[in-house]
Amino acid sequence: MKLRAAVVGATGIAGQQFLVALQDHPLFEVVQLAGSERSAGKRYHQAVGWNVAEPMPTKFREMDVVDGSKLSLDGVDIVFTAVESDAAKELEPRYAERVPVISTASAYRYETDVPILIPAVNGDQASLIKVQQKKRGTKGFITPIPNCTTTGLVIALAPLARSFGLEKVVMTSMQAVSGAGRSPGVIALDIVDNVIPYIAKEEEKVEREVKKILGALIGEEIVPDAVQVSATCTRVAVLDGHFETATVALKHKASLAEVRAAMERFGADINPSTHPSAPRQWITVHDDPYRPQPRRDRDADRGMTTSVGRLREDKVLGEHAVKFVLVSHNTKMGAAMGAVLVAEDLLRRGIIAG
Amino acid sequence: MKLRAAVVGATGIAGQQFLVALQDHPLFEVVQLAGSERSAGKRYHQAVGWNVAEPMPTKFREMDVVDGSKLSLDGVDIVFTAVESDAAKELEPRYAERVPVISTASAYRYETDVPILIPAVNGDQASLIKVQQKKRGTKGFITPIPNCTTTGLVIALAPLARSFGLEKVVMTSMQAVSGAGRSPGVIALDIVDNVIPYIAKEEEKVEREVKKILGALIGEEIVPDAVQVSATCTRVAVLDGHFETATVALKHKASLAEVRAAMERFGADINPSTHPSAPRQWITVHDDPYRPQPRRDRDADRGMTTSVGRLREDKVLGEHAVKFVLVSHNTKMGAAMGAVLVAEDLLRRGIIAG
Amino acid sequence: MKLRAAVVGATGIAGQQFLVALQDHPLFEVVQLAGSERSAGKRYHQAVGWNVAEPMPTKFREMDVVDGSKLSLDGVDIVFTAVESDAAKELEPRYAERVPVISTASAYRYETDVPILIPAVNGDQASLIKVQQKKRGTKGFITPIPNCTTTGLVIALAPLARSFGLEKVVMTSMQAVSGAGRSPGVIALDIVDNVIPYIAKEEEKVEREVKKILGALIGEEIVPDAVQVSATCTRVAVLDGHFETATVALKHKASLAEVRAAMERFGADINPSTHPSAPRQWITVHDDPYRPQPRRDRDADRGMTTSVGRLREDKVLGEHAVKFVLVSHNTKMGAAMGAVLVAEDLLRRGIIAG
Amino acid sequence: MKLRAAVVGATGIAGQQFLVALQDHPLFEVVQLAGSERSAGKRYHQAVGWNVAEPMPTKFREMDVVDGSKLSLDGVDIVFTAVESDAAKELEPRYAERVPVISTASAYRYETDVPILIPAVNGDQASLIKVQQKKRGTKGFITPIPNCTTTGLVIALAPLARSFGLEKVVMTSMQAVSGAGRSPGVIALDIVDNVIPYIAKEEEKVEREVKKILGALIGEEIVPDAVQVSATCTRVAVLDGHFETATVALKHKASLAEVRAAMERFGADINPSTHPSAPRQWITVHDDPYRPQPRRDRDADRGMTTSVGRLREDKVLGEHAVKFVLVSHNTKMGAAMGAVLVAEDLLRRGIIAG
Repeated sequence: MKLRAAVVGATGIAGQQFLVALQDHPLFEVVQLAGSERSAGKRYHQAVGWNVAEPMPTKFREMDVVDGSKLSLDGVDIVFTAVESDAAKELEPRYAERVPVISTASAYRYETDVPILIPAVNGDQASLIKVQQKKRGTKGFITPIPNCTTTGLVIALAPLARSFGLEKVVMTSMQAVSGAGRSPGVIALDIVDNVIPYIAKEEEKVEREVKKILGALIGEEIVPDAVQVSATCTRVAVLDGHFETATVALKHKASLAEVRAAMERFGADINPSTHPSAPRQWITVHDDPYRPQPRRDRDADRGMTTSVGRLREDKVLGEHAVKFVLVSHNTKMGAAMGAVLVAEDLLRRGIIAG
Repeated sequence: MKLRAAVVGATGIAGQQFLVALQDHPLFEVVQLAGSERSAGKRYHQAVGWNVAEPMPTKFREMDVVDGSKLSLDGVDIVFTAVESDAAKELEPRYAERVPVISTASAYRYETDVPILIPAVNGDQASLIKVQQKKRGTKGFITPIPNCTTTGLVIALAPLARSFGLEKVVMTSMQAVSGAGRSPGVIALDIVDNVIPYIAKEEEKVEREVKKILGALIGEEIVPDAVQVSATCTRVAVLDGHFETATVALKHKASLAEVRAAMERFGADINPSTHPSAPRQWITVHDDPYRPQPRRDRDADRGMTTSVGRLREDKVLGEHAVKFVLVSHNTKMGAAMGAVLVAEDLLRRGIIAG
Repeated sequence: MKLRAAVVGATGIAGQQFLVALQDHPLFEVVQLAGSERSAGKRYHQAVGWNVAEPMPTKFREMDVVDGSKLSLDGVDIVFTAVESDAAKELEPRYAERVPVISTASAYRYETDVPILIPAVNGDQASLIKVQQKKRGTKGFITPIPNCTTTGLVIALAPLARSFGLEKVVMTSMQAVSGAGRSPGVIALDIVDNVIPYIAKEEEKVEREVKKILGALIGEEIVPDAVQVSATCTRVAVLDGHFETATVALKHKASLAEVRAAMERFGADINPSTHPSAPRQWITVHDDPYRPQPRRDRDADRGMTTSVGRLREDKVLGEHAVKFVLVSHNTKMGAAMGAVLVAEDLLRRGIIAG
Repeated sequence: MKLRAAVVGATGIAGQQFLVALQDHPLFEVVQLAGSERSAGKRYHQAVGWNVAEPMPTKFREMDVVDGSKLSLDGVDIVFTAVESDAAKELEPRYAERVPVISTASAYRYETDVPILIPAVNGDQASLIKVQQKKRGTKGFITPIPNCTTTGLVIALAPLARSFGLEKVVMTSMQAVSGAGRSPGVIALDIVDNVIPYIAKEEEKVEREVKKILGALIGEEIVPDAVQVSATCTRVAVLDGHFETATVALKHKASLAEVRAAMERFGADINPSTHPSAPRQWITVHDDPYRPQPRRDRDADRGMTTSVGRLREDKVLGEHAVKFVLVSHNTKMGAAMGAVLVAEDLLRRGIIAG
């Protein structure tokens, strides 16, 4: 028996990706599609401008799209939301009264009773959900995933945090245009033959989310990790796949071989045998200095593997510092499929009832 | 009376840029064009595949191209070289026996008796040239300009070094494809919809050159500045203009307003009234967080101005740290026109005889 | 004494280009800037998101922007409009009651009493303006320029039409993204690593406008040329400059040398000595088969020259057929500066009073 | 029992694609890899710079690369060649003395006893191979596939040729950079923000090959079809997938519905059930005027389907004319996988012994 899922924001790019990620899922069955008032009442294929590389799953073509603000939760076991922050702010608490809500929006990420989950990184913070339910008196709950730029960075940092401790991180991102969506997204006149040096609110999100995700759940709240993060976020003419350079000061001495080993063994217990959407290898470390590249590495293991390369010692940021680059697929692990992976983990932990 | 100049490597991209920079120059007149053995004996327009945005100056079309290894220096007062490092290694000392050689190549950058000059930054290091001439017993000398990625960074750092002292720099570059030239340069299959995370030897050059250029000439040698530099150099799908993000720890406390003021007044005494190729403003600081961008800012003041933006405090790299982004035109200030500017400065200082 | 001009739609891209084209114009002085209701009441630099390569002319920075629908024409001798078709439909007749209106919009292009002017091509059709004024009882009039894709094509065709007669034209365009403006324009997700095979209404405009522009003014109306035009219009990842391939069946036999000569001498009497915005050479014919290219040729003579290349015989379209490619700057000759050139010509002809 | 195949030119891009196409092939097993003298003696993974989207098949990593000019054909049943024309000229006849040679090179395409095969289009021309063997006294033979730009065009034309007859074709291509390979291929400096109007020899190939492929095998030779083809071939900033616009004059009247139906039913008998590499649908006709696009449609059915769109009547080229656009994957159907499909067809026809 699969859990019955509603996808809210189903006509947007992230919503389309949810449908791709869920189309043949062994644990979830999409039974409701919700969109804006404008889409409501149409068949899905009439309401959507399909924009994802994979073809539109035929099973959803003729499904009706309902108004997300009028979504009935009868017969719905779980809701995946892919809406803008303002809409999320209003809709998600309503849904959470009755069912679990896994969200790609930032609206509730920074509430003290809301964890930002990536199973291999901080799956244990899922127990904060009980606190949330108790405090809010809801049957369901809200669990957002991180910002897509946080995701790759914090996955690469997590094994270092555990094995060696983190002191400081200086990061520069070169982000793909798909991260900005289509309304209006990044226009070609701004990005062809160019770099855009600023993405509003992005740096603050990354700096805050890394600390929270790597934090410790003590009693009923998460104590953020002490790591200091300095981010500069830019946009480049890449379609999908965020590229980041990171310089990291560790608390304890670690050879490059030890760093690499910690990365390569990271997340081994969360794999496709237990979590259908999990990557076989959470982090791949490249030897070739010309890798990873967004175009050639973003799709590693269905876009779920984080690719690290150019691992080097750093003499500048701290006594025990390393630097590296990474590629993470912003619309796969960094969005819908990453959210589905969270649902899989919560199901396995019994926080979502199977 | 203008000085008579030879341009060696005149058919390559940097050589073409020399011809553009020198075509109507008030102080220099190009009288000889030299290229490889293969180009020798041809008219310039037959030997060259013109690839610079500006049109080929008509006055050079019918000039003969001679073999750089057989260049006669009779009637030549100064040589500008734009050849690969290996060729530079061999040719430049020969020319330097008789005349000043201003070079874009890295071959002699790291010799103890060779300064790497940017007039507003370290024009005083020009006096090392006398040491070089004495030591090598030459009438002329060799003066290289920095690597094009060093140029923008060190110009932005110089006012901070002078006013507040530098401790640490963490830099990520997103470099234009023109920096790789055309033989074969960056192929489209590698860079469209992509980022390349590595440029061979580039990071080492930047780290070493910044320290030397900001160093102090004490007695007969340059003592490198103590600043520690950590660079990650990447290539993006931009035609011209290197973009860099920099996080900088200062020795002494400085407000953002003070940092900005130091940048804005930097280099004021080296301007078009004294140096025809100098920018009116060496560093422009943008308020708009979406600027500078390579495409929209690289050509500021004929590609000679360094554009800084997103100036912010940084809490991570040091007690007194700032961060910013910059755009520098890699084939104007960072190459031929930057070299011509050095010649103008040496002429003014009397190191090149007028 | 310069004519006093108002620019309507001054904050859009085409409006910005009008300001660049008019900033130091010997015959026109911009005295009013009009925009949408939203822009009205602001200073120009506050109302505009400046997006043109050239810097914003300082003289317009602090000018007030008025609401185009409330524009007073007191003290205005001529209006240049750069607004969407719907707005043009409403505003232009109002302005035309009192003053000449030179428009980039398509709203009135296909009216029988409205010529679509390019001075070197069909300047004589300007006499239709008298018919328009008489018929409409207006002091002013409306004269639109062609669609930017028509412009380059019809300039290249005009000398062939005159010298050899035209029978058929098969054309494929590869158009720049700037042609779509910014609201929202072409988004990067759609055009990077891609071609878009369709531009709504574009082909119909080109097919219709070529016939009208090359038509004959007989009595009080234009009889369209009999040439049959078949266009396929596409969008490519180019910032500025429309590229077109054209196969053309001529009525009369013509050697390639004759075709070339006809192109090269075309428009010689309309040049900067008589029309400040006119190109010195209306059509340049390249020998190098790798030219023209949008990026390297769009800016020829301030973007006013049409660059033709790959001139070849064609055996397929007709008995006397040729084929070629062309590049035309869609936002210079194809928009604002092309409109200013029309005003210059009408002034010279006395249709606009000097 | 699979046929034992050698791949010659295995380290180039087309060679890599052969390995991808053949890695799990039910009928062919790659037993030899050949390259240039420089690659000979190395393991495959040492000799190759892997540049294809799909990962390098593990089974070939450790295979030895032999010198193509010294390739032993003992134990080889078929040779796939992916070398430059000059090398093909020399090597292919040697191989063909003993075994079938399926080639991507143009060296022998225009010989009278050599068919250029696309199974659904002109599979019957395969009987020319017997003529070739008799004439040349060889056990094997040479069969090239068409130029990658011909392939999509001739597939789209074939159903029209059969059902309605062809008179004239005017075609403009916008070709992907992968078609130029990597030695040096198209450099980024030439194609970013640009269109290149010329590809050497391409137009002649397309014009000639279409006529031959659509020709009739009469007696012992192919009589080219009478269709007249006029091609203009250009390069755009697209990684993979050639886009073409075609205007086609038919001999007999045909409604758009009839044209569409002819395209859609084309090739139905050559499908994956009989030919593992064949597309399920040879030609897909899109209704959405914004499709096909290279990036979104090139990979249709493993890159083997030709995508047609914008099917319209044309009034210009002839009495019964239509126009359309198409996308064809130049390195899948247009290269290696297209060649493998030819081998499958020849095997089925008994021309290659199973």
